Amino acid sequence: MDGRILMGHGSGGRMMERLIRELIAPAFGMTSLADAADLGPINGRLAYTTDSYVVSPVFFPGGNIGELAVNGTVNDLSMIGAAPRFLTAGFIIEEGFSIEDLSRIVASMAKAADEAGVRIVAGDTKVVERGKCDRIFINTSGVGVIPDGISLGPKRIAPGDAVIVSGPVGSHGMAVMAERNGLSFSPPLSSDTAPLNGLAASMLEAAPDSVKMLRDPTRGGLATIIKEIAVDAGRRITLQERAIPVLPSVRGGCDLLGLDPLYVANEGVLVAVVAADAADAVLSAMRSHRFGKHSAIIGTVDAEAGGAETGGKALLATIAGGTRILDLLTGEQLPRIC
Amino acid sequence: MDGRILMGHGSGGRMMERLIRELIAPAFGMTSLADAADLGPINGRLAYTTDSYVVSPVFFPGGNIGELAVNGTVNDLSMIGAAPRFLTAGFIIEEGFSIEDLSRIVASMAKAADEAGVRIVAGDTKVVERGKCDRIFINTSGVGVIPDGISLGPKRIAPGDAVIVSGPVGSHGMAVMAERNGLSFSPPLSSDTAPLNGLAASMLEAAPDSVKMLRDPTRGGLATIIKEIAVDAGRRITLQERAIPVLPSVRGGCDLLGLDPLYVANEGVLVAVVAADAADAVLSAMRSHRFGKHSAIIGTVDAEAGGAETGGKALLATIAGGTRILDLLTGEQLPRIC
Repeated sequence: MDGRILMGHGSGGRMMERLIRELIAPAFGMTSLADAADLGPINGRLAYTTDSYVVSPVFFPGGNIGELAVNGTVNDLSMIGAAPRFLTAGFIIEEGFSIEDLSRIVASMAKAADEAGVRIVAGDTKVVERGKCDRIFINTSGVGVIPDGISLGPKRIAPGDAVIVSGPVGSHGMAVMAERNGLSFSPPLSSDTAPLNGLAASMLEAAPDSVKMLRDPTRGGLATIIKEIAVDAGRRITLQERAIPVLPSVRGGCDLLGLDPLYVANEGVLVAVVAADAADAVLSAMRSHRFGKHSAIIGTVDAEAGGAETGGKALLATIAGGTRILDLLTGEQLPRIC
Repeated sequence: MDGRILMGHGSGGRMMERLIRELIAPAFGMTSLADAADLGPINGRLAYTTDSYVVSPVFFPGGNIGELAVNGTVNDLSMIGAAPRFLTAGFIIEEGFSIEDLSRIVASMAKAADEAGVRIVAGDTKVVERGKCDRIFINTSGVGVIPDGISLGPKRIAPGDAVIVSGPVGSHGMAVMAERNGLSFSPPLSSDTAPLNGLAASMLEAAPDSVKMLRDPTRGGLATIIKEIAVDAGRRITLQERAIPVLPSVRGGCDLLGLDPLYVANEGVLVAVVAADAADAVLSAMRSHRFGKHSAIIGTVDAEAGGAETGGKALLATIAGGTRILDLLTGEQLPRIC
């Protein structure tokens, strides 16, 4: 198939049937075009999530909207300790979108699903008139199974726990912003988009009872997620600015655009809160994983409580020796980053 | 909350947190704002589906995009015999959309979920700049459990089987088209949007082994779905035009706009293929259900095979005494009907 997407590709009729049968179903290995998939028996605690992706531009250094949509949903499941199993994919496509670009996006979704060990089992295609969406939007939902005994969450967080990040922060957001602004860097910026289920599983295997909480700092960045964790746990968390990994090119780009890398989105980074006595074991397991090579302990849960008024506080001990309060992202710093 | 949606409502930061905490989570009864939901143990055959909704206008006679999104996904699960259990909801909202309209949509999603007996357990909110989408798009995905012994599908279809429709066709599509074209009818046209899980369950209960296949004729309408069933089964199906229920106002609207009601979308109608000897029992069960009162036997699976070249054929015995071939919908008759 080639050419461009027409309104008829969303009609429910012959053109849509052909688009799905020839382009989408083969890429995802779907054997049935029924509206719902029968996935056979499942036993266990079910995890379930959804995310829509509206990133602009659709193709950016290090990835595209398709693999972002697969990895993002895989990661949301992984952060509650689930093993991701099945995904759905819903496409909203602007009339006139190139079928070649759609093929590239679908192919990278298939590849990302394969790398994460999940199957895309159901899909949907809608087409809207030119000017009624921005090229292509993709929704993915995902289900996974939470292994027995796994229970992650803020309530388990206690003073002394270590805060670990799995890699340099701000790379995804800066890669998209650089592309949008026509900036280039040497070495080039690249999105960190990656599936984190393998990394999360290796951490839970290394210290099943000591990993207390996982989160992926996407929109809002590291700072927003740390503040959310502090609020949810009702604790005070202090990060050491010196310990937070940021690539030089990301730091340079942020300086240029007036952004704070701690508030810039990540798509292949996780934050873990881990019992102090297991922090080294977990860190070592993370560094052995391809997506955790640059993991670092970046902070601690303080003995001092979070404060009744705020219900949780996040602080940054700066390189300059001062202390800065980290709050939720205010306003919209980086629109349509995912 | 009032006012309009701003880009910050999709930021991942403070404004988004407030929108979800104050407007979306309470409506859906969500107790956690985590990215993925832990749904506890599930045992059984898993059914899984997704659909995105881009209907224009967002509010139409008899419903809105929100209840359509819930009912549509409930229905996709019901058509493979599953009992729908959990839904996700992903919102893509245009900057400037009214928060009051969003509240109305979310409230009708909650009401529809309640009526169908499903829980909306996870969600996502993205905001795009003005002009980058058309007011609001909603994706829903759904999981359900298929009871033991249920196996619906075209392979079970055999000559002599009856084809039953659960109600008048074309109402949803014509209600949307009438609204779009500023037409009014007396009595007024109204979408048929409805959850079909209860109706499907009552049919399977009445004749568990004799209901062979269910489909809901949404985009493409009744004719497209009958052709698809014929192709999938490799059989010839003949419908009796005289037996197909169409409301007079829908027929009038179709005449006015030059549309064929058999190709107009339905959102609360199902088509069943049922063994001949159980057809009356199933019909009677359907007519006892609030969404099946006007059910009718509209055709049969013929003794003659579907034909090797076509791999399945659908015919319409017309009121005038002729025979018309029913094919898949060609082109795009009714854009953005769901």
